Amino acid sequence: MYPHFALTLQRTLYHTFDAPGDALVLDGGRTLSSHTVAYQTWGQLDETRSNAILIFHALSGDSHVSGQHEDGRSGWWNMMVGPGCAFDTDRYFIICANVLGGCKGSTGPSSHNPETGRPYGTDFPVVTIDDMVRAQRPLLRLLGIEKLHAVNGASMGGMLALAFTQLYPEMTERAIIMASAAANHAQAIAWNKIGRRAIMNDPHWLGGHYYDSPDGPPRRGLAVARMIGHVTYISEGAMDRKFGRSLQAADKESFSFGVDYAVESYLAYQGKSFHERFDANSYLYITRAIDYFDFAAKTKGDLTAAFAQTRARYRFFSYDADWLYSPERNEAMAQAALAGGREAVHHRVHAPLGHDAFLVQKEPQTELISEFLQK
Amino acid sequence: MYPHFALTLQRTLYHTFDAPGDALVLDGGRTLSSHTVAYQTWGQLDETRSNAILIFHALSGDSHVSGQHEDGRSGWWNMMVGPGCAFDTDRYFIICANVLGGCKGSTGPSSHNPETGRPYGTDFPVVTIDDMVRAQRPLLRLLGIEKLHAVNGASMGGMLALAFTQLYPEMTERAIIMASAAANHAQAIAWNKIGRRAIMNDPHWLGGHYYDSPDGPPRRGLAVARMIGHVTYISEGAMDRKFGRSLQAADKESFSFGVDYAVESYLAYQGKSFHERFDANSYLYITRAIDYFDFAAKTKGDLTAAFAQTRARYRFFSYDADWLYSPERNEAMAQAALAGGREAVHHRVHAPLGHDAFLVQKEPQTELISEFLQK
Repeated sequence: MYPHFALTLQRTLYHTFDAPGDALVLDGGRTLSSHTVAYQTWGQLDETRSNAILIFHALSGDSHVSGQHEDGRSGWWNMMVGPGCAFDTDRYFIICANVLGGCKGSTGPSSHNPETGRPYGTDFPVVTIDDMVRAQRPLLRLLGIEKLHAVNGASMGGMLALAFTQLYPEMTERAIIMASAAANHAQAIAWNKIGRRAIMNDPHWLGGHYYDSPDGPPRRGLAVARMIGHVTYISEGAMDRKFGRSLQAADKESFSFGVDYAVESYLAYQGKSFHERFDANSYLYITRAIDYFDFAAKTKGDLTAAFAQTRARYRFFSYDADWLYSPERNEAMAQAALAGGREAVHHRVHAPLGHDAFLVQKEPQTELISEFLQK
Repeated sequence: MYPHFALTLQRTLYHTFDAPGDALVLDGGRTLSSHTVAYQTWGQLDETRSNAILIFHALSGDSHVSGQHEDGRSGWWNMMVGPGCAFDTDRYFIICANVLGGCKGSTGPSSHNPETGRPYGTDFPVVTIDDMVRAQRPLLRLLGIEKLHAVNGASMGGMLALAFTQLYPEMTERAIIMASAAANHAQAIAWNKIGRRAIMNDPHWLGGHYYDSPDGPPRRGLAVARMIGHVTYISEGAMDRKFGRSLQAADKESFSFGVDYAVESYLAYQGKSFHERFDANSYLYITRAIDYFDFAAKTKGDLTAAFAQTRARYRFFSYDADWLYSPERNEAMAQAALAGGREAVHHRVHAPLGHDAFLVQKEPQTELISEFLQK
């Protein structure tokens, strides 16, 4: 792993699982002869091994979906995963793994490349959402799970959950897809592209081989990419209400290019702090995987046909002020799933915050998910 | 002027006007003892000097609003300004000037700094929308115009037109404001901030003093800023329809970080070509001026009170798929203008393209504007 993250990771109580016997043939044609999956679990697997739920994280997430770590860091979805929560750890065995290409313990561009003895950097192969799902298949074998009670994910996690129902149709009863889309759309591809461009423009990026550089990683480029992402995660109205035109410190404009407005300060902070917990190359790889995602690609663009080949019962959740993956895109999935003969319901949730509502708003999802999981 | 632009400018048939007797005291406290205004005119000023219309351009515009130049370049608003157009040059005397802080002939950061004998760079003072309007006041004096038939502008140009009605309430009969807002809002401030950050991160920026650098201007940073801007100018739906997930050249993904999708190619082109016609420092200065714009600032945030102090008759045009300056923001201006005792009408135009519709769609605006100008 990228030395910069080593300290953080040492304190992170995830398990790693090496899948050396499971050579991973990637969509791009290359093969990873072995890979590591960093994962965590909560709750108890029941005797029939039928109460397991696999949760997939979003772009910048990790396996630490719930609980409190020794370093004080909370799970990114504590409100949804825990005793008595929607994903009730008293009842279900919850699994969450860091994605392939990530930087939170699973194999990715910051990992040791056995062929060179150094971090992969951009020698790491470009991976897809399907590759990320396949990378987690051996983990289920390790845990002795043949069929999941449910898969779940929001944003990119929703794409992974969808892909799971397509790659392993017999392996899950239910799929809960939130704030996601059946394919990445042009505007979202554009944002990803611009973010990657900002990273690759940074002279510290060094073609992706910056891990040993005395200058450190491409912090500034990653900051710009993260800032772009952040704006897409929040609705225009929420930004108006949260920041408006409030000045950050002084009582008048500075007549400079520094930080005047609260929204500038917020973004600068988000951008600046991100490199402390995220690898710029992983940002490149994960956004590219999102770009490439198209659930209907295997059925020549026919989304209904794609759902017809799956077996899960679907629940879609969208957030009405989400402009990254809009309610309309989630509704389109639900309609195609129904047309494909699946059980599917789309819950359009009132959430003025926008896309990031999946991270902070728990109602009415909690009741709806609890009910669906018990049905 | 920045040498890079010299060639382009030589072929551009604008006039320049130096205002040495008009020291410009700027909102930020500094003074420009003289400044140049690059402008063009179309049509004939009538005997009573009462048929003049001043058009303000948007962020990346210039004085070349109409006609064909020797170099073959068309005016940026040929469809709206010309014989028989909404702004009918057979009937009206049309004026358009490059804004202060720009790079198309008027004084800006790429201009010669008389104190150092070199281009200003970031020694140029940060200017406001009001400063830009004040900078054009001497031009009207030069042309012998005491009262305009109308002022007009779209996007940032709309802010300038609004500011004109506030700074010189007796000097225009009408104001036509399109795809604009009474103040820059948090999300738009955020995009501007991120774009500036990308420019300032570019090692070729050199603190703004890159004009003599052998490495040339901060092309890559400016490209990222421009790409961000472009996405905000087009609606999500228009990007879906125009690009969708179409691949640019090959029939499958490259599994690289290069250009796969048509939307990536489009953005890369927009970004790459922009530095050939625009100065990165001007991008900083102009976006900052937009950030600072707040029509209600002088009336302590009371927009109605701000309009009550004006005298123009207003027409607002918005484009229903514009998510940068939404119909709601334009409607808010119209409502406040009415509440402030002004004549005001808001036309919400169906325009699936989004913000950039003001540049390419001429109906029903042409008829509505013609009628308003003749009333």
